[in-house]
Amino acid sequence: MNAVGLIVEYNPFHNGHAFHLNASKEAANADVVIAVMSGNFLQRGEPALVSKWYRTRMALLNGVDIVFELPYRFAVQKAEIFANGAVSILDAAGCNAVCFGSESGDLASFLKTIDFLTEQQEQLEENIHRFIETGVSYPKAVSLAYHQLSDSNSYLDLAKPNNILGIEYIKAIKNQRSSLHPLTVARKNADYHDEHFASETIASATSIRKAIFSKECDTFSIEQYVPGPTKQLLLDYYNEYQVFHQWENYWNYLHFRLIQSSTEELKEIYEVEEGLENRLLQAAFISDSFQEFMEKIKTKRYTWTRLRRLCVHILTNTKKEQMAGPEDKASYLRLLGMTDTGKEYLNKRKKDFALPLVSKLSSYKEKDILLDLKAARIYSLGVAHHKTKELMNQEFKQQPIWIEKR
Amino acid sequence: MNAVGLIVEYNPFHNGHAFHLNASKEAANADVVIAVMSGNFLQRGEPALVSKWYRTRMALLNGVDIVFELPYRFAVQKAEIFANGAVSILDAAGCNAVCFGSESGDLASFLKTIDFLTEQQEQLEENIHRFIETGVSYPKAVSLAYHQLSDSNSYLDLAKPNNILGIEYIKAIKNQRSSLHPLTVARKNADYHDEHFASETIASATSIRKAIFSKECDTFSIEQYVPGPTKQLLLDYYNEYQVFHQWENYWNYLHFRLIQSSTEELKEIYEVEEGLENRLLQAAFISDSFQEFMEKIKTKRYTWTRLRRLCVHILTNTKKEQMAGPEDKASYLRLLGMTDTGKEYLNKRKKDFALPLVSKLSSYKEKDILLDLKAARIYSLGVAHHKTKELMNQEFKQQPIWIEKR
Repeated sequence: MNAVGLIVEYNPFHNGHAFHLNASKEAANADVVIAVMSGNFLQRGEPALVSKWYRTRMALLNGVDIVFELPYRFAVQKAEIFANGAVSILDAAGCNAVCFGSESGDLASFLKTIDFLTEQQEQLEENIHRFIETGVSYPKAVSLAYHQLSDSNSYLDLAKPNNILGIEYIKAIKNQRSSLHPLTVARKNADYHDEHFASETIASATSIRKAIFSKECDTFSIEQYVPGPTKQLLLDYYNEYQVFHQWENYWNYLHFRLIQSSTEELKEIYEVEEGLENRLLQAAFISDSFQEFMEKIKTKRYTWTRLRRLCVHILTNTKKEQMAGPEDKASYLRLLGMTDTGKEYLNKRKKDFALPLVSKLSSYKEKDILLDLKAARIYSLGVAHHKTKELMNQEFKQQPIWIEKR
Repeated sequence: MNAVGLIVEYNPFHNGHAFHLNASKEAANADVVIAVMSGNFLQRGEPALVSKWYRTRMALLNGVDIVFELPYRFAVQKAEIFANGAVSILDAAGCNAVCFGSESGDLASFLKTIDFLTEQQEQLEENIHRFIETGVSYPKAVSLAYHQLSDSNSYLDLAKPNNILGIEYIKAIKNQRSSLHPLTVARKNADYHDEHFASETIASATSIRKAIFSKECDTFSIEQYVPGPTKQLLLDYYNEYQVFHQWENYWNYLHFRLIQSSTEELKEIYEVEEGLENRLLQAAFISDSFQEFMEKIKTKRYTWTRLRRLCVHILTNTKKEQMAGPEDKASYLRLLGMTDTGKEYLNKRKKDFALPLVSKLSSYKEKDILLDLKAARIYSLGVAHHKTKELMNQEFKQQPIWIEKR
């Protein structure tokens, strides 16, 4: 069985994802689609709209055969570490290829850009350093330094997050000496950052979330942009837990934790660096909402994403030493769900998996997986009060979701 | 000017307190009444019904002339440390006497009991140790051991919290070689622990709080038991902050903090000892309310009060080393409020005070006072959301309350 791997967040699964899924399957000539998906907290440093279990269902009902969780230690991270974790999981699960979406859809331009970045590394680092000294954020400095060096249009635009991720996937494959084939398919007209609907059927997850939050629970406003199962699962989730998760649901907890913390404790938190702890504390005392807090701590030096991720780590109390493991490889395959086809694949192939297959948390103890467990427990504080306990304890005993033949 | 010192919590100030205040003033032949009052968290391990500022107003409008705050490091503590802190403040503020309420109203029985406890100390400790080994709590073991030894009725009943406090006040005076005169006046018929109203005008603070919480904001049910200013200030507080504080208002924060903590972090918290950290964590995962949580962690070994205090320390993130200062003396006099008479007293006497007089937090940095500040900030998370920020920042700038001539 030929397996293609996808690296996803599905927040929520929309028509653009369906397009990417089918195009990937075709491009890789695959029988099985394996997704590695961020858990309850995402790379952008946000809680997912709905829990990883509901997002797993969305994936399975829309054509994915197996969903593995990208551990918290890789999911709430900058592109390089995120990519390393994801690639290591798809590789360990026996995928033949990984297929990512990109603006260009042209693998050659990725390879060319990577070669260029490697050749010019020294000069590039010098330029990045110079830009950082002017006070801009690291990603911005990279982009500026790169544009200063690359005069040709055949190189990728590094200001686009999907290009950065694509580059990191390919670099991870190289560094890990993985036999995964990198593939890319062109994305349908929706920019990652788009906040407005720009087509009849394809919209960015950002614009879809925005529509959802502007009307809560009125999923009709998004129904042309998402497949039926997504709409149904969003409705079900809202009916069950009375919330679509967003940062403001966790603000009171973040606020409280900041107020009760010492600067010494804050300095132990992953990504809290260079005196940020004082800035965080001062802002906490005078902010009424997460939005207000973020505006107070923002400087040119740090991106919004970096600061939101840091807030996630404060919320989950994740310390530097807990994130300090080997940066490039996951140590387990946490199975969130499968279809019949997925099950068949697992039965045939799991004995060859390079990492232990974990179906239930209660049967596996490992440093990284305890972070996933804690993240799930903290996430459950965001749902309607009377459902918290149930959700908090479910995580420990939950069996992988199994979707039988459709 | 002759000053009598009172050690109080006024949660809230009721007719029994008014009686005690007047009787104390008379017994000491005093011109000035100085109260040292617990701040926002109390010796029983609970948030105060209303903030220390409103309770200061109650005190001043009902006959107290000066209110000092008993620092958190002494207030949320067992009787011995509580008494040491309180006595050291009244002593430093130049009081001639301290007058406490007791069931007997007879100082001789206190002195006799203390002598007995001193003489029999060795035997008593042996007996206490033996009772503790049967699994009972420390206070219970003390009471049992003591009753086993004391056959005479002229000794005090150590099962009564007011008697224990009284004994500790006198011991503190002795140990600190203070020149304070201990005095006691008989309490009017209301047991500390009474939950029901037992007289026409005097009721315990416990029964008054119970009545308040059973009807929120309907202060008419308690008006025969509290002076007019108390009733008015309770109404004002509720109108302004939309809450009377109780543990359940802080449960979500305690819950969150337990869930995000490691057992190692919990072990650093003051009073978390002997494997309690695991018990706390396990109970947190399966509790929906503070009440439920407390019932799950309770054992014969620990009193409710001890466990509630421990929860306050988790809430305020107060660590063992932060409470580790010299146990017997406060290091500042934090002025919460004064009347004209109080002001006159301060002007005449403050140059002789044995401790620095602190009128504003922003003008004084000291280890203990930062605990008071943090406790006030955490307390402010319990009020209506839109008032939190204001209350949180008020603490730092607040001037002492000054009640002009009535």
